[in-house]
Amino acid sequence: MPTTSRPDLLLPADPGLRALARQLYALAAEQPIISPHGHVDPALLAEDRPFPDPSRLIIVPDHYLTRMLLSQGVPPAELGVPTVDGSPVETDGRKIWRRFVDGWHLFRGTPSRLWLEQTLTEVFGVDTPLSPATADAVYDEVAARLAEPAFRPRALFDRFRIEVLATTESPLDDLAQHAKLAADGWGGPGGKVVTTFRPDNVVDMEFDNWAGNVERLGAVAGEDTGTYAGFLAALRRRREAFIAAGATCSDHGHPTAQTLDLDAREAAALFERGLRGTADAADAEAFRAHMLLEFARMSLDDGLVMQLHPGSVRNHNRWLYARHGRDVGGDIPQATEYLHALTPLLDAHGNDPRLRVVVYTLDEYTFTRELAPLAGGYAALYLGAPWWFLDSPEVLRRFREAVTETAGFYNTAGFVDDTRAFCSIPVRHDVARRVDAGFLARLVAEHRLTEDEAAETIVDLAYRLPKRVYKIGEQL
Amino acid sequence: MPTTSRPDLLLPADPGLRALARQLYALAAEQPIISPHGHVDPALLAEDRPFPDPSRLIIVPDHYLTRMLLSQGVPPAELGVPTVDGSPVETDGRKIWRRFVDGWHLFRGTPSRLWLEQTLTEVFGVDTPLSPATADAVYDEVAARLAEPAFRPRALFDRFRIEVLATTESPLDDLAQHAKLAADGWGGPGGKVVTTFRPDNVVDMEFDNWAGNVERLGAVAGEDTGTYAGFLAALRRRREAFIAAGATCSDHGHPTAQTLDLDAREAAALFERGLRGTADAADAEAFRAHMLLEFARMSLDDGLVMQLHPGSVRNHNRWLYARHGRDVGGDIPQATEYLHALTPLLDAHGNDPRLRVVVYTLDEYTFTRELAPLAGGYAALYLGAPWWFLDSPEVLRRFREAVTETAGFYNTAGFVDDTRAFCSIPVRHDVARRVDAGFLARLVAEHRLTEDEAAETIVDLAYRLPKRVYKIGEQL
Amino acid sequence: MPTTSRPDLLLPADPGLRALARQLYALAAEQPIISPHGHVDPALLAEDRPFPDPSRLIIVPDHYLTRMLLSQGVPPAELGVPTVDGSPVETDGRKIWRRFVDGWHLFRGTPSRLWLEQTLTEVFGVDTPLSPATADAVYDEVAARLAEPAFRPRALFDRFRIEVLATTESPLDDLAQHAKLAADGWGGPGGKVVTTFRPDNVVDMEFDNWAGNVERLGAVAGEDTGTYAGFLAALRRRREAFIAAGATCSDHGHPTAQTLDLDAREAAALFERGLRGTADAADAEAFRAHMLLEFARMSLDDGLVMQLHPGSVRNHNRWLYARHGRDVGGDIPQATEYLHALTPLLDAHGNDPRLRVVVYTLDEYTFTRELAPLAGGYAALYLGAPWWFLDSPEVLRRFREAVTETAGFYNTAGFVDDTRAFCSIPVRHDVARRVDAGFLARLVAEHRLTEDEAAETIVDLAYRLPKRVYKIGEQL
Repeated sequence: MPTTSRPDLLLPADPGLRALARQLYALAAEQPIISPHGHVDPALLAEDRPFPDPSRLIIVPDHYLTRMLLSQGVPPAELGVPTVDGSPVETDGRKIWRRFVDGWHLFRGTPSRLWLEQTLTEVFGVDTPLSPATADAVYDEVAARLAEPAFRPRALFDRFRIEVLATTESPLDDLAQHAKLAADGWGGPGGKVVTTFRPDNVVDMEFDNWAGNVERLGAVAGEDTGTYAGFLAALRRRREAFIAAGATCSDHGHPTAQTLDLDAREAAALFERGLRGTADAADAEAFRAHMLLEFARMSLDDGLVMQLHPGSVRNHNRWLYARHGRDVGGDIPQATEYLHALTPLLDAHGNDPRLRVVVYTLDEYTFTRELAPLAGGYAALYLGAPWWFLDSPEVLRRFREAVTETAGFYNTAGFVDDTRAFCSIPVRHDVARRVDAGFLARLVAEHRLTEDEAAETIVDLAYRLPKRVYKIGEQL
Repeated sequence: MPTTSRPDLLLPADPGLRALARQLYALAAEQPIISPHGHVDPALLAEDRPFPDPSRLIIVPDHYLTRMLLSQGVPPAELGVPTVDGSPVETDGRKIWRRFVDGWHLFRGTPSRLWLEQTLTEVFGVDTPLSPATADAVYDEVAARLAEPAFRPRALFDRFRIEVLATTESPLDDLAQHAKLAADGWGGPGGKVVTTFRPDNVVDMEFDNWAGNVERLGAVAGEDTGTYAGFLAALRRRREAFIAAGATCSDHGHPTAQTLDLDAREAAALFERGLRGTADAADAEAFRAHMLLEFARMSLDDGLVMQLHPGSVRNHNRWLYARHGRDVGGDIPQATEYLHALTPLLDAHGNDPRLRVVVYTLDEYTFTRELAPLAGGYAALYLGAPWWFLDSPEVLRRFREAVTETAGFYNTAGFVDDTRAFCSIPVRHDVARRVDAGFLARLVAEHRLTEDEAAETIVDLAYRLPKRVYKIGEQL
Repeated sequence: MPTTSRPDLLLPADPGLRALARQLYALAAEQPIISPHGHVDPALLAEDRPFPDPSRLIIVPDHYLTRMLLSQGVPPAELGVPTVDGSPVETDGRKIWRRFVDGWHLFRGTPSRLWLEQTLTEVFGVDTPLSPATADAVYDEVAARLAEPAFRPRALFDRFRIEVLATTESPLDDLAQHAKLAADGWGGPGGKVVTTFRPDNVVDMEFDNWAGNVERLGAVAGEDTGTYAGFLAALRRRREAFIAAGATCSDHGHPTAQTLDLDAREAAALFERGLRGTADAADAEAFRAHMLLEFARMSLDDGLVMQLHPGSVRNHNRWLYARHGRDVGGDIPQATEYLHALTPLLDAHGNDPRLRVVVYTLDEYTFTRELAPLAGGYAALYLGAPWWFLDSPEVLRRFREAVTETAGFYNTAGFVDDTRAFCSIPVRHDVARRVDAGFLARLVAEHRLTEDEAAETIVDLAYRLPKRVYKIGEQL
């Protein structure tokens, strides 16, 4: 779904470069969307119900938006963000919308602004520029669209030309929504909507109620997770179930990139300390680190591509967490070390091309020093797209400028939208494609690449590369 | 005071971008100057005496200049920098000037070069390009200007269109110069020249003669600073006096950004160890860190905006420090961690919009990873302008490119000149305005912002935002 | 040897900037090449034999190339990289060439691609674009050239307009090749090919067989290296021999930038623990750090310029190291701290302009925070060109954008090719000159520098500055 209302959006200002970039972008814009990692609720597509009102669709669940207003003193409750204790928040969609639009200027120069504007114009066909004066009119236009059948999730999925969308579930999930999708011809291996195996809640001892989760894992998998061997067996069972539901990837969100290769006895001892409640923070870190080695070994057996998302300090804003819970914008990046952290994993399996590990970062100050040299030197490593806070035009550009010279294009994994905002998916991919077009245009203009090569590369980046790296469409 | 001799100075080279940037810059150039943080000696404006000779005005006190010549082997004594032990240095202004101009090529590509050139052309009207061949002629022209009444400090202040200038004083200062300014109608709350409360010399146990300073603080404030409670009371008293002299801000220069929320007993114990001379480096760090929490609490009471300048290793060049003392260019940045360091302060008051903390950095490799996400997620935090070594065209541009996407424009605090070089103030602000114009022009050219929005934003950045964030003109 | 087939290669896309850059580049392109640091085998020029086949010349020894193919699963053995245990590898030059060219797209956007393309067109006159379809034809053309007398090393040296090339040898080297070069009028003090004193293998206790190397050092130098005093004496002797063979520099490759000023007794104790085999990792680090102080003192006596290359984790890829040994691409950068690490050295001699220390980095995230302020504040410090992984167009540009504002141009040391690939030397210098021309053109276009100054500066950067900083052509 190429965007049309601002054809030169994000393309370089220099007229010569822009002309080149326009041609390259046109090739990218034709490609279907591969969305190998994100957080769309599978029920959305399984049930295919109409979306709720514009505010509940666009504002309430988007912590990029509510966070920015909080930074200027607007409490999330005024924007309808639910509270942990159920204390009342604003529920009138129109009031939430107005409150939000009052702070619209705060988003100048941000990707949130770009994504929302493009969602309004390209997805909803609303050409009225958003401003406090037009807030109601825009709200009404979007609300009217949402009532139309063409704006139901599955219709949009097809209109967005999404080829495959991967959602993310925990091993405790019964995958019922994915079963329904498969029954409707939308899911299952090689299907349009697939799942991803994300075991953080049973791997991270610091997760709320980890021991309870481990017990539930046993129940779901039909294994005795009271022992470490049973725990591993249960994980293997759930991976099988996920693969049967179309998964081609696992995903791991850890505070650091630490990996560790313990022997089975040490690992079992850690696991038992965890269950007994006597594990400390170092134990928890060691167990997470070691489990990445276990998952790498499982990947060598079952073929799931590993995704590693390190470096986020979760729920840093304690007031926000106490009032509104997880995943509402209180996560902040910390400095992330990769070289020494990944050494145990790379020593064990780094040169094995059958393993595939896609590493993401929240710390752009590792691009040239660690990430590009590692990805350019180990067969198993790929660089994921700049992630969260970095999934923006300026950083997407800096990412290419920084990593290409050492890792090339083909050790990167293509764009990932990583979003729960379904309606913004085409727009986010569009932004990345435009930035890549601008970067490639510069390489051509500087005589570092031929036009033919750039044309092939932009299609690889937009479509072929993510499909291949994440094994999209493959049956494991 | 817009600059005129090089109308397109620093504007983007691309003709389309330049045309846009020119229009935006013109709007910024019309704005008066808000200088909310700097080190101009208030006596300069209180006494309004003529400036001394060109070298004593421009070279001797500017460690950016003397430092660069030292890096090429020219001892500061040859440039007239006074010695700690009073051993003789060059005193002939003309000789100092010539010696400096011999090294003029060293400054190619530096902001010092830009600032000095613009000061010569725009402030002194000297159009002769500086070079060894013209050194004497330029010296004579500047010297001639300095003798004219129009080049007295207050006349220049008005010509520079400075609306408010904040100086920086320690709590031990009797604020006599500010009293004189107030008496002349130039100072006091809401006045043209105001002070800033900078308590480092009574907060940092590693400061020369800290215990003596604490004792003097008691004397100045009329409190018994032999106890921690009395120490806090004395600080509160001095803050009142500073507010009465027009202060709207405090300022805190610490080696790290560490904050700490001790209970009163622990804090008192640290304070007492300091007075007894038994505090170690960790005690000093803990006390500095804790005092930031105390100052945050005082700010909630009295309204002073906190400025935090962390990350400088003071007096790193020991030879320079031994011979020439503090503040002559021996300070070097170190890696600065913000996320964990600021946690205690943010846990306590980070979501309280009544508190305002402006954080600066010497470490640009924190822009996207820590600073922008923090400022974009906490109501109390604002990002100060790139500081010292980073207050340059390239970094001002990179700052906008890095932080805007996550923090927007409105969690930044506007430009700060941070200078003791009074004559360079308009020129430094002009440089920042030009860079912002170029950045905004690119956003417009890339269809990320409308021209109207860019026009409003540039005026916000140049004038409205610093005025609001630093409470300039407000009566606390 | 200016390049001609793509006259605007790497110059800015904007037509105005490009025109300016073209003029500046033309001035740089006229300059002879000063190559003050690299790893060309002196036997190449001493013996002046024809080069072997294209693959053995271009692919097998270039770990930039074999590393990238490894990152996509191609084992180095398939590219002819010799094994430690002598197990067989591909030996057919044509097969190696084809295998490599199959992965040619992997290098899009990398400096390896640029260097190889330019080597083919500018050095070998091969205009056929490289691709799997043309692999054989290009191989044959290069092979034909290599058989011609004009492509013997000395003929190319003259055609490349190399004025001086420094090779790198260990103190254990007998310098026989350099003696032959001197006998032929090619070497010795002030000669065309000189050596560099690189003592890592006798300084780093963690080096393979360090104690044995120390013993050999004694034998080569005619000193008893069983004592620390004898060890130092032997190093001094070898420095004399290196100076007699034309050396003007030493070079030090350490995992960190740590320096340390131990007293003689402590240093001797460390040395003895090392010889007895009881030194631990901390001892090894302390000894390396201390030896930098010893070498600084020797430099003050004999005038050798120190080069410091810190921050590489050697042989990180253990599989690669086990199979193929050192220097085949398994080195990865780590975060490098300079400020505190260099303090002991700077405290002792940092303000002494007789000492000259050129510091390199693999960690670009120190450019503005540490490296530029240090080089701009200490007389003894110069910044080396961006090194390995960073010796690329984008980083060369970012280096100028980052360090110039604080260190200026004249605290940088000029480009260093640091290569063992003799045929790529002119091409690598050409790339750096083009990037500098583009940067200077922008400064001119933004009215930050006059055209005359830019013209002088580009020649300084390309020729005068490296010659002066590394004392090239000087007789110590």
